[in-house]
Amino acid sequence: MDLNADLGEGFGRWALGDDVGLLGVVSSANIACGFHAGDPSIMYRTCEAAAAAGVAVGAHVGYRDLAGFGRRFVDVAPAELTADVLYQLGGLDACARAAGTRVSYVKPHGALYNALGTHEAQADAVVDAVRAFDPSLPVLGLPGAVWLKRAEVAGLPVRYEAFADRAYTGRGTLVDRRSPGAVLHSGAEIVQRCLSLAVDGQVRAVDGRVVRMRVDSLCVHGDTAGAVGIARAVRDALAGAGVAVEAVAGEPPRIA
Amino acid sequence: MDLNADLGEGFGRWALGDDVGLLGVVSSANIACGFHAGDPSIMYRTCEAAAAAGVAVGAHVGYRDLAGFGRRFVDVAPAELTADVLYQLGGLDACARAAGTRVSYVKPHGALYNALGTHEAQADAVVDAVRAFDPSLPVLGLPGAVWLKRAEVAGLPVRYEAFADRAYTGRGTLVDRRSPGAVLHSGAEIVQRCLSLAVDGQVRAVDGRVVRMRVDSLCVHGDTAGAVGIARAVRDALAGAGVAVEAVAGEPPRIA
Amino acid sequence: MDLNADLGEGFGRWALGDDVGLLGVVSSANIACGFHAGDPSIMYRTCEAAAAAGVAVGAHVGYRDLAGFGRRFVDVAPAELTADVLYQLGGLDACARAAGTRVSYVKPHGALYNALGTHEAQADAVVDAVRAFDPSLPVLGLPGAVWLKRAEVAGLPVRYEAFADRAYTGRGTLVDRRSPGAVLHSGAEIVQRCLSLAVDGQVRAVDGRVVRMRVDSLCVHGDTAGAVGIARAVRDALAGAGVAVEAVAGEPPRIA
Amino acid sequence: MDLNADLGEGFGRWALGDDVGLLGVVSSANIACGFHAGDPSIMYRTCEAAAAAGVAVGAHVGYRDLAGFGRRFVDVAPAELTADVLYQLGGLDACARAAGTRVSYVKPHGALYNALGTHEAQADAVVDAVRAFDPSLPVLGLPGAVWLKRAEVAGLPVRYEAFADRAYTGRGTLVDRRSPGAVLHSGAEIVQRCLSLAVDGQVRAVDGRVVRMRVDSLCVHGDTAGAVGIARAVRDALAGAGVAVEAVAGEPPRIA
Repeated sequence: MDLNADLGEGFGRWALGDDVGLLGVVSSANIACGFHAGDPSIMYRTCEAAAAAGVAVGAHVGYRDLAGFGRRFVDVAPAELTADVLYQLGGLDACARAAGTRVSYVKPHGALYNALGTHEAQADAVVDAVRAFDPSLPVLGLPGAVWLKRAEVAGLPVRYEAFADRAYTGRGTLVDRRSPGAVLHSGAEIVQRCLSLAVDGQVRAVDGRVVRMRVDSLCVHGDTAGAVGIARAVRDALAGAGVAVEAVAGEPPRIA
Repeated sequence: MDLNADLGEGFGRWALGDDVGLLGVVSSANIACGFHAGDPSIMYRTCEAAAAAGVAVGAHVGYRDLAGFGRRFVDVAPAELTADVLYQLGGLDACARAAGTRVSYVKPHGALYNALGTHEAQADAVVDAVRAFDPSLPVLGLPGAVWLKRAEVAGLPVRYEAFADRAYTGRGTLVDRRSPGAVLHSGAEIVQRCLSLAVDGQVRAVDGRVVRMRVDSLCVHGDTAGAVGIARAVRDALAGAGVAVEAVAGEPPRIA
Repeated sequence: MDLNADLGEGFGRWALGDDVGLLGVVSSANIACGFHAGDPSIMYRTCEAAAAAGVAVGAHVGYRDLAGFGRRFVDVAPAELTADVLYQLGGLDACARAAGTRVSYVKPHGALYNALGTHEAQADAVVDAVRAFDPSLPVLGLPGAVWLKRAEVAGLPVRYEAFADRAYTGRGTLVDRRSPGAVLHSGAEIVQRCLSLAVDGQVRAVDGRVVRMRVDSLCVHGDTAGAVGIARAVRDALAGAGVAVEAVAGEPPRIA
Repeated sequence: MDLNADLGEGFGRWALGDDVGLLGVVSSANIACGFHAGDPSIMYRTCEAAAAAGVAVGAHVGYRDLAGFGRRFVDVAPAELTADVLYQLGGLDACARAAGTRVSYVKPHGALYNALGTHEAQADAVVDAVRAFDPSLPVLGLPGAVWLKRAEVAGLPVRYEAFADRAYTGRGTLVDRRSPGAVLHSGAEIVQRCLSLAVDGQVRAVDGRVVRMRVDSLCVHGDTAGAVGIARAVRDALAGAGVAVEAVAGEPPRIA
């Protein structure tokens, strides 16, 4: 089982999240690529730190929207989105290689992540970008997302993630973030959920039903004080259950 | 002899220069990388057009300054400049490879070009970026520029250019752009200057002296109506003198 | 009858449209405010030119999207949109006052213009911004647009425009730009349409019906070679029919 | 005596500094205007909070450089700098007025602050902008700065500040930030220095000399955990010495 989290989400003078803490816990780091967060210096330093920690680097591509942190849908034309994603992939990969590692998977960020669940033209656009960049590059997202179906057809390796701290409906989709109970706050509950997903491949939905899910990676957070502690508890629980934590995209390159 | 020109200098809705005209004349295209001009869509389309025309793609890296078109010195710290250049190289190369070609040389733009003539810390920073990206990548600039000396020491292939339409001092440096006569406007004079540089390796300075210069590439412009015509006349004159026009960085990849 | 057009749509090194030509024709200039186009230098110079030509300055507010020229819908939260519009109004007004004039009306640009036709939360957000800035400032838009209804309720002076070169449906709405015949290209037809709107307050729809419309302003374009000529022909035809061309928001301030 | 500090230095998702803490201490808030920090939503909310706290709003204008937080010199042409500052003043003032207050003084930020100490062309450019915006608007800066001399000649009200935590040379200038001892860290020492400046109009320099300085405002910081506590201790010490803390630019508008 892979553990992934968002890293390198600062910009210039501004920092965000506990990257150092997360690098001691996760196996995969979704690193912002400059369009919603992450200037090149932060990208390079985050790649360097990930490489040193043996954590795989993923391209956390987003809309060009620093002011909105990539959390606002932008109705960008498909051909432009393809080019925007290509550019972000290339920019991060250059930083990663200079830091002794490389981009080893792609996970969209924020509003783009959400849009790709249903927006066919944008889904195709992102798949086109990844294929053009490297057709062997795994993509990571939500089971059922339109873009992952397209990615599969296009021959890209597809990996699925679940959110450690989100409630699920009986159909296996995420409960809307604005609904009560959509986000789990209890560390014990989050750990239990992750164990259930990792060991049994299932999750208990808000309606009580047990839903089977194929999950390759668990997404954890590091933006609050307690978050890294919970992430660490998840990792420890997985270890206790005999589940190895390893990068979804295979081992990252070793640094000499 | 190589002929190089700046291409892909639009951004979003805004266009600049006669890229189509230039691609019929030059052997090397300095393509803006998104920091002073060039959004990813323009970068991709310009790479595509360059590839189709058999013109080599160069990374025209600049300061992060869209509002100033990269023409204002920015006192960026060396480590940040290294990362900024790395990111631009990677971003353009991803677009270029998707378009069937690749970045085959690096030429700084505008105020960065000027700064690298004398600014040692920024010179080292750019050399570091190119080396980290690809230590076999040629760099193109002005004879005598500090950054080219550093590049040479660092083992990067160094190529020298002259400006087709600029006056030179007796010491082989450019006459300050603000001085009278600094820029040549006569097509005949420009053609004659280029022939002299290409065939005899020399230029007549404003003080009448003849200065010897090693020149691998001639920089031509396409931002005015007559500019592409003059560039074409230069190419024709070189051909008439038996000088082959070919990319400074070797032949670009062939498209199947 | 007012004639309005978009001006100041360059950014930094990039120019767009024939501002000089348009300032000899229109009575109102929609000036970009820096978010989709228009850096402060261009804003100031355009205000100066408008003031010298006796043309009223309008704030052409847009989404924060330079790369997309404000033509892509951005799902910005209402409170943020209110602040973004306030900032643009204040920024342009400072330039305008320094140039001896002032912002005398507001017209949204591009995708924001379209969104405000139906998007209630964004409509309220923009109305809130204009009211907070100056509750006596007229707003200009399409008859039937949701935001103008909200503006009317909020007590803002509301002015309506028609497009000189667009086809209308029998319900008085614009024919979708992607439909055949949506855009008129014949100068004679455009002039005839403008006369009919200005003199008779009616337009012939694509289904043959004659639709009555209250129109305070006609929107003309200056982005193609012939466009300024057509705009001038419209103005001349209005003059010939005894229709005075004057700013929708009243006379702009006189420069001493 | 005025106490001023930098506020509103976040951008989008990113926060910085303890604005709430500082608003309980200072009499003047230097609010970022969107070019080096501060999006319009943050600007509006910070103005609202300043107004509620009875703290005066100052325009903290900077270079257009989000990635560098305005801390890198940019060689911007004077006419462009004038327009950039005008735009920032207008943008912040619109936010301030909507929040029930107004811009009541101007203090440049970061590298612009430093450049204006000696750079004559940029100094004139900023003075021109303030005069064009409002010739009665006070400007705040370092004694001896070139731009304040120009401001005085231009008839702008000039106010002088000292830094609570910086060491001074025997000539009354700041010790270079990179020199040892340039920044004071002891709260007691900072309080003592502020008292000496406020009560006696003098400061003890690093060479032991006592330097007389006219100081209207003391600049305090809020970017570290202890900083707000020290600022509060300065305020309490001034109160204990019978020195009233009040805005350098006069009382801000009262909110009904």
